[in-house]
Amino acid sequence: MPDSITHMTSIRVRYAETDQMGIVYYANYLVWMEIGRVEYCRSIGFHYREMELEDGVLLAVAESNCRYSSPARYDEEISIATHVSEANRRMVTFEYEMTCAGRKIATGRTVHVFISRALRPIRLPDKYAALFGI
Amino acid sequence: MPDSITHMTSIRVRYAETDQMGIVYYANYLVWMEIGRVEYCRSIGFHYREMELEDGVLLAVAESNCRYSSPARYDEEISIATHVSEANRRMVTFEYEMTCAGRKIATGRTVHVFISRALRPIRLPDKYAALFGI
Amino acid sequence: MPDSITHMTSIRVRYAETDQMGIVYYANYLVWMEIGRVEYCRSIGFHYREMELEDGVLLAVAESNCRYSSPARYDEEISIATHVSEANRRMVTFEYEMTCAGRKIATGRTVHVFISRALRPIRLPDKYAALFGI
Amino acid sequence: MPDSITHMTSIRVRYAETDQMGIVYYANYLVWMEIGRVEYCRSIGFHYREMELEDGVLLAVAESNCRYSSPARYDEEISIATHVSEANRRMVTFEYEMTCAGRKIATGRTVHVFISRALRPIRLPDKYAALFGI
Repeated sequence: MPDSITHMTSIRVRYAETDQMGIVYYANYLVWMEIGRVEYCRSIGFHYREMELEDGVLLAVAESNCRYSSPARYDEEISIATHVSEANRRMVTFEYEMTCAGRKIATGRTVHVFISRALRPIRLPDKYAALFGI
Repeated sequence: MPDSITHMTSIRVRYAETDQMGIVYYANYLVWMEIGRVEYCRSIGFHYREMELEDGVLLAVAESNCRYSSPARYDEEISIATHVSEANRRMVTFEYEMTCAGRKIATGRTVHVFISRALRPIRLPDKYAALFGI
Repeated sequence: MPDSITHMTSIRVRYAETDQMGIVYYANYLVWMEIGRVEYCRSIGFHYREMELEDGVLLAVAESNCRYSSPARYDEEISIATHVSEANRRMVTFEYEMTCAGRKIATGRTVHVFISRALRPIRLPDKYAALFGI
Repeated sequence: MPDSITHMTSIRVRYAETDQMGIVYYANYLVWMEIGRVEYCRSIGFHYREMELEDGVLLAVAESNCRYSSPARYDEEISIATHVSEANRRMVTFEYEMTCAGRKIATGRTVHVFISRALRPIRLPDKYAALFGI
């Protein structure tokens, strides 16, 4: 049951991430989810960069979803709570909650499949599977 | 019933849009949806920029969703078919299908609410509503 | 003498490219220079994607420069005039002028070196050199 | 003489920032310079966001320059050393050195002018000028 860990990380909103509405452009939340995901993985001892370089296992995104609750603004510090809601040898689902000083900013979900460098689906190698509790 | 029009537009994949997996980074599909949406609006005589500047009506994103079917690559020409699947005075939902030479790349959906410059929900003014058939 | 050709291309400013100042974020001009460069190359029969895939020759950026004259705004159509100001077997320099309906937006310059997939400097193969008149 | 302070900040390379060459896309260095600049300003008690919101003073970029020495890669930690090399009531020039574990990645320079919300040049108000030692 992979859901026991929630990892917290935080980022500060970059000027580059805002748009002329004066708030963060909606696609950038997916970049923040990536950061939450990478830091979650690092926290459980799973180094994505190594897996990609040494084992040729990549994580392809199959689906992304984001619900925007309250706008995030330049220079605000955003907390990203990330957990794995589902995982098996073929795919993993991450969920995210983004907040700013207690205010809910957005929630998101990304579904990933493990693929080879040739971009074909593969099974996650044992050494990584254990880290996800699968 | 707003769904009668599907607008086609196309973009060419920028080098900036790829990542080290050699394919388009997943957040960039949301930028493409924005382009599909803007061009759809232009095609029905709805100029988003004018509405924002002259009437102070903005379109805030409430939800985004993308399903990634097949990777898009640098320099490929991507067709974006955009239509409105739901619309009323408070919100509008766009759906997108992205293809490359007949190959399905991704499908997406974004839900938007009409807001004022102060970022509060408002009703879409009459002159714009007619364009959406509402 | 490579400078005889100036290639014109145009792009429309994306919402994603603006920032909260209501104008285009300054790093995005470098993305536009990339588009000017790619289209310039395409126009002389030089397909960057093929060179990268088939010959393993990449163009690394050694230097970039941009002077911002007048802000570009959402939905404006920007013309990019691109030419090669210097080229030899080891490097090539592109220059860009970006305008909007005759108004000067920015000028830029990028210097590139030819490198292998292992990111080491190499000489540009004959078949490509001829296209640059070198 | 504004040059006495050098502020150090660091960022971790995001997957989103890489391109298919497997290294950081060249425009993203300008985003990092922005982060160095913002953190420099914060360190001297100059809050850019406040100046923009409360005083309507914005910093427009007039020129940017970057020399790329060695590629930065995904997940690397990049140190950004930022200092002000020139400043007066009308403009300020920042310089940046980006390194990764002692390896020089890039150097950059940005020139900015102070402008009003209407995007016209203005003189920097006293309360901010003192912070820059001008």
